Amino acid sequence: MTSKSTEIPNSQGSAVISESTSFIETKRRIVASAARVFSRRGFTAGTTKEIAADLHMSQPAVYHYIGSKNLLLEEIALKVVNDLSRSLEEGPEDSDNPNLRLRNTIRRFSDAVLRNQNECTVFWRERHSFAPELEAKVIAREREFMTKVAALIADLQTKERLPKHLASGILAEAIIGMPVWSYHWYRQNRHPDARALADLYCDLIGIP
Amino acid sequence: MTSKSTEIPNSQGSAVISESTSFIETKRRIVASAARVFSRRGFTAGTTKEIAADLHMSQPAVYHYIGSKNLLLEEIALKVVNDLSRSLEEGPEDSDNPNLRLRNTIRRFSDAVLRNQNECTVFWRERHSFAPELEAKVIAREREFMTKVAALIADLQTKERLPKHLASGILAEAIIGMPVWSYHWYRQNRHPDARALADLYCDLIGIP
Repeated sequence: MTSKSTEIPNSQGSAVISESTSFIETKRRIVASAARVFSRRGFTAGTTKEIAADLHMSQPAVYHYIGSKNLLLEEIALKVVNDLSRSLEEGPEDSDNPNLRLRNTIRRFSDAVLRNQNECTVFWRERHSFAPELEAKVIAREREFMTKVAALIADLQTKERLPKHLASGILAEAIIGMPVWSYHWYRQNRHPDARALADLYCDLIGIP
Repeated sequence: MTSKSTEIPNSQGSAVISESTSFIETKRRIVASAARVFSRRGFTAGTTKEIAADLHMSQPAVYHYIGSKNLLLEEIALKVVNDLSRSLEEGPEDSDNPNLRLRNTIRRFSDAVLRNQNECTVFWRERHSFAPELEAKVIAREREFMTKVAALIADLQTKERLPKHLASGILAEAIIGMPVWSYHWYRQNRHPDARALADLYCDLIGIP
């Protein structure tokens, strides 16, 4: 666990911030470890004991930070949804050029999938076991995301960069399918990085 | 259960064929029902009792045909692998034209994914719980499949139908990712059929 207290002046108020920062950091590490364990062993077979062992923590300490195995799954799901959604937020590289905007979105999305490869594996594998409120939240975010991608694509269709006769909603599913599916086949030591892959997807569909 | 005995002359030899045909047909229906149940409820939560109820059969009858829940999973996995692999076998529509060969392969593959939407859902969700021998078999078939798709793509690259500077193995993953991912988003009552989708993927990547 990295303590950030050295960076913070030694006052009472800052001590609280410091504790809360390290609480969040520990929780983040537990969620990452849970994604590794559940991705390798499955959510049903994977245990908080293994997560604790992976982090050299005690099992009660894991429960102190998270509460239950189901809440761990929820944390993983929300991380995926948040990180993938964030790839639609415009970055400093984005411009008025809609080709570049789509390319940069696909670069950020591709990167978010591969940074969260374990999380994505657990997410798509365990969708059927999400609690109804979580599943409703995920569906809403997913729809919002796909609608925005479809709008980017529709913009390129009016500019004749992508075939006009194809439905933008289905083009969005097809294009997003390429980076999404990398969660299944990607191996870091064998394949190019997320940006190179994103550029390959764009070159393949003729985005200049 | 459809009995085929009416089509077969009434001799002792034929009676055996008839019984075996209906055995295979019943087994096929059980595997399809298991895919529906496991896809909706998950492999761990889904039960042979639900499968039996779905088919108006008794639970012991289900076991008589299949043996165990794990063997049901194996049947589902082998069906996916066989049906998807078969899309590489040349069809009557195929020609010496490599564009059309790739398009027809993607059409057959897209159709195989959507015909097996439940089976594919269970397959990709439960890969981590496959027995080691099954997983080894699946990996070998998957590699063989992707190698053949990459060869079709490399052929189009030499003919400059697809960008030459991109690795054919990764192009194969990207292109196959589009129809594969439809197992997740496809809804029969809302979306075009498999052939129309396959044509959209090909139009998108500029296969004439």
